Amino acid sequence: MKEKSASESLTVMTEMVLPNDTNTLNNLMGGRLLHWMDIAAAIAAQRHCNRTVVTASVDSVSFQRAITLGDVVIIKAQVTRTFNSSMEVRLEVTAENVPSGIKIRSNEAFYTFVAVDQVGQPIPVAEVIPETEEEKRFYDSAMQRRQLRLIFSGKMKPDDAKELKALFEKATEGTLN
Amino acid sequence: MKEKSASESLTVMTEMVLPNDTNTLNNLMGGRLLHWMDIAAAIAAQRHCNRTVVTASVDSVSFQRAITLGDVVIIKAQVTRTFNSSMEVRLEVTAENVPSGIKIRSNEAFYTFVAVDQVGQPIPVAEVIPETEEEKRFYDSAMQRRQLRLIFSGKMKPDDAKELKALFEKATEGTLN
Amino acid sequence: MKEKSASESLTVMTEMVLPNDTNTLNNLMGGRLLHWMDIAAAIAAQRHCNRTVVTASVDSVSFQRAITLGDVVIIKAQVTRTFNSSMEVRLEVTAENVPSGIKIRSNEAFYTFVAVDQVGQPIPVAEVIPETEEEKRFYDSAMQRRQLRLIFSGKMKPDDAKELKALFEKATEGTLN
Amino acid sequence: MKEKSASESLTVMTEMVLPNDTNTLNNLMGGRLLHWMDIAAAIAAQRHCNRTVVTASVDSVSFQRAITLGDVVIIKAQVTRTFNSSMEVRLEVTAENVPSGIKIRSNEAFYTFVAVDQVGQPIPVAEVIPETEEEKRFYDSAMQRRQLRLIFSGKMKPDDAKELKALFEKATEGTLN
Amino acid sequence: MKEKSASESLTVMTEMVLPNDTNTLNNLMGGRLLHWMDIAAAIAAQRHCNRTVVTASVDSVSFQRAITLGDVVIIKAQVTRTFNSSMEVRLEVTAENVPSGIKIRSNEAFYTFVAVDQVGQPIPVAEVIPETEEEKRFYDSAMQRRQLRLIFSGKMKPDDAKELKALFEKATEGTLN
Amino acid sequence: MKEKSASESLTVMTEMVLPNDTNTLNNLMGGRLLHWMDIAAAIAAQRHCNRTVVTASVDSVSFQRAITLGDVVIIKAQVTRTFNSSMEVRLEVTAENVPSGIKIRSNEAFYTFVAVDQVGQPIPVAEVIPETEEEKRFYDSAMQRRQLRLIFSGKMKPDDAKELKALFEKATEGTLN
Repeated sequence: MKEKSASESLTVMTEMVLPNDTNTLNNLMGGRLLHWMDIAAAIAAQRHCNRTVVTASVDSVSFQRAITLGDVVIIKAQVTRTFNSSMEVRLEVTAENVPSGIKIRSNEAFYTFVAVDQVGQPIPVAEVIPETEEEKRFYDSAMQRRQLRLIFSGKMKPDDAKELKALFEKATEGTLN
Repeated sequence: MKEKSASESLTVMTEMVLPNDTNTLNNLMGGRLLHWMDIAAAIAAQRHCNRTVVTASVDSVSFQRAITLGDVVIIKAQVTRTFNSSMEVRLEVTAENVPSGIKIRSNEAFYTFVAVDQVGQPIPVAEVIPETEEEKRFYDSAMQRRQLRLIFSGKMKPDDAKELKALFEKATEGTLN
Repeated sequence: MKEKSASESLTVMTEMVLPNDTNTLNNLMGGRLLHWMDIAAAIAAQRHCNRTVVTASVDSVSFQRAITLGDVVIIKAQVTRTFNSSMEVRLEVTAENVPSGIKIRSNEAFYTFVAVDQVGQPIPVAEVIPETEEEKRFYDSAMQRRQLRLIFSGKMKPDDAKELKALFEKATEGTLN
Repeated sequence: MKEKSASESLTVMTEMVLPNDTNTLNNLMGGRLLHWMDIAAAIAAQRHCNRTVVTASVDSVSFQRAITLGDVVIIKAQVTRTFNSSMEVRLEVTAENVPSGIKIRSNEAFYTFVAVDQVGQPIPVAEVIPETEEEKRFYDSAMQRRQLRLIFSGKMKPDDAKELKALFEKATEGTLN
Repeated sequence: MKEKSASESLTVMTEMVLPNDTNTLNNLMGGRLLHWMDIAAAIAAQRHCNRTVVTASVDSVSFQRAITLGDVVIIKAQVTRTFNSSMEVRLEVTAENVPSGIKIRSNEAFYTFVAVDQVGQPIPVAEVIPETEEEKRFYDSAMQRRQLRLIFSGKMKPDDAKELKALFEKATEGTLN
Repeated sequence: MKEKSASESLTVMTEMVLPNDTNTLNNLMGGRLLHWMDIAAAIAAQRHCNRTVVTASVDSVSFQRAITLGDVVIIKAQVTRTFNSSMEVRLEVTAENVPSGIKIRSNEAFYTFVAVDQVGQPIPVAEVIPETEEEKRFYDSAMQRRQLRLIFSGKMKPDDAKELKALFEKATEGTLN
């Protein structure tokens, strides 16, 4: 398996917020956006591994601003790092009000996918080579987010999560993304 | 605002996995499930606060097993704790293969909602009274998950997250949920 | 085939009325509700017989009040009685206006399903044991509703429908449900 | 209000059964068909009364044969009779297997609609003039079906339903449709 | 293969414009109408050739007037002419405002389909016999529209398109449809 | 109104072909693709004019190859030229089979939109500045395609369509796109 640069998986999805996508405040429903993000992230993961992929986990989706009916939503998804058969994908969502031309960053999220064979069994994937400064930052912090997921699912004790523990031991300004 | 017991917000949603909900492996797509969970969780949050609510964040959705075409999906959502105008909702998803009668726990997740007024501004919500042992456990750990979300969104330094730090300082078996 | 109590088939479905579900008065469209009820009833029938089921008939769906955009719809479905390979399912629909907390019974209906094997041929199902007073009442009146369906489809002459005829011969206060 | 002939409300809807409309046997789901029928019947009722209409009841939908993926579904809807502000619509559904050219009558049903004004209050509608033999037959039997609906909803005692009672008192071959 | 008259393929589809079909002006979205037209045209083509068909091209869809939320859309599709394995289908779209009873012709279009066998290979179809004056007119002009499509796709030089060239050489009032 | 370069309107939409998008051959339905293209093209037109836009016509969509279930569809839309209040948008559709990494150009099309004000009246839009060789070619041939549309809609006589006529008068290798 040949390593691939992170940017080879970049996927850009553009959607328009239509009436069926909105809640009673005429804003985009969170669930609809989560669905679109899942498809964009799955395509990015597939582009990295050239395999069928299944969603393994979703963390840390924050909804910073309401997106309104008629807005254009631009979702960018890119693989940050792989661990055996799993791939972490980072998503950035931008809402564009076309008449005014104003674009606002509205969401960020990390989705994890597992590459599977025809019968649904996990298979290993190639490693990711981060190239830009930002890609390297997300590559590094991916380990801490993975430890968080393992603790959440009861597969790791907090005490064993070295990288994550370090974040709390130093009185740093560090974040998890 | 009168406090409410956690169980008053309990919401049970039952769906059947139809062809349009599946991927090319004939399994339920992650994004569709995230969408259903968002609606179930929003109803639970609304039942707690009797207000319009908007999705604020989604954490820690793990997909433990594939759910297949024709399966029945049962989603249970209940508010665990509130923080000013935000409410954390815990979801449990069970997949039921009806011919065999086998039911399997397939997912867990925490969604956070904010109660808003008619113009979309946050408004305070009543507190939750946990009653069962399980409700108390999720009420307590909600503080740690909240600190994680604040660190993720850059609004808190890891060093200030006392409850969360404690989890890493003790060599405990503790988990985050 | 082991008999089952009526309550083992109980299915609770919760949906939120979104823009796409409404007509130009902003009320839930009848056809959308009929669709949701069909899925809820099919799950109840499957839970009773542990088989694939197909819709055989729909009777007596009354729409007593309009359900509005943003309302939560709670559909309860339970098998009332079986006849060879067919099962009658009774549905109760409640509309909940979450901000006010008001819940109103909005619809009732009877759907009939047939259990089928892999090639779509009908196969016998277990009998239902009604336990509560209400379950017994619906079990008894199921015979009259079945006779009505047979008359409608031209498979029975009105004169042969003993239980149904009796309803008209006595100057009773009886109803059909 | 000018009377209208029954045929002025005739509505023909043609749909193709696509993957999303089918169950796990690859047959059209009953609920989807009920939804299409509701829209076709609502258009027929609107064409009769030139008003907004809401579904009031659904009776006697029988599903005689499975309709398969790829089939073309032809739904014909026509008003049979009116009662103050309500209109009964009769539907005939035909399934067409296009490659073989075979068309099969698969369903019949009666839906009832109420004409409403801008605030949702019922308003009277014009009467229907049946012209063909078949239209006259459905016009006449509409009274019996109406009495059945009133008995079902508890608004009429069986003893007061003269036309319906007559059906059971004579040892006739009569049907309800 | 037996020739068929053009009218044997006539397909009438009736749809109601619901909230999910509209843009932010509350008018029917062009894309939704294009989708409905594709299904209606595919049924007409299938009725002509009794085969599976795939869309080959879409030309000359003009949107003359906005169709609004709540309007009824009537789509008529009929095969005009065939060329080996391809069939040209003409569509007429009428928008009906039911309360006022006003019907307005809103769109016309030509879609082309190819008949295919089980593995997707093109297979020849029967010829069309135009019977009315209008059918004959569309049969004749079909050759010019075909040449246009071939020029567009780079498969024909303008100089070789005799019938089409003739349209420009004579100072006629001729149109392409 | 300030002129804008053609590339400022570039819109990239990425979709995955799911079961509900396919016909009985498991290929993407033409109508679904036409719908996606309409949304992508509308976004491009909006980005050019910063106004609400409505679809005015669709020409020359050719479907060169079947796109299959599971494929990723990439739609690129860009404004080619404007005429008063109308904008022509060119679309290129690529189908990507992710496991093999193979990408195939599958469709091209021209959609036309009109910019409208709040009451739906057409308003003038800024001109487009083509920059690349390809942009200039599509800018030039846009006049011929516009004349074709005017002839189709009966608003221009073929004899008045100078640029289009020239295409047929010279024995050129020219195409219309």
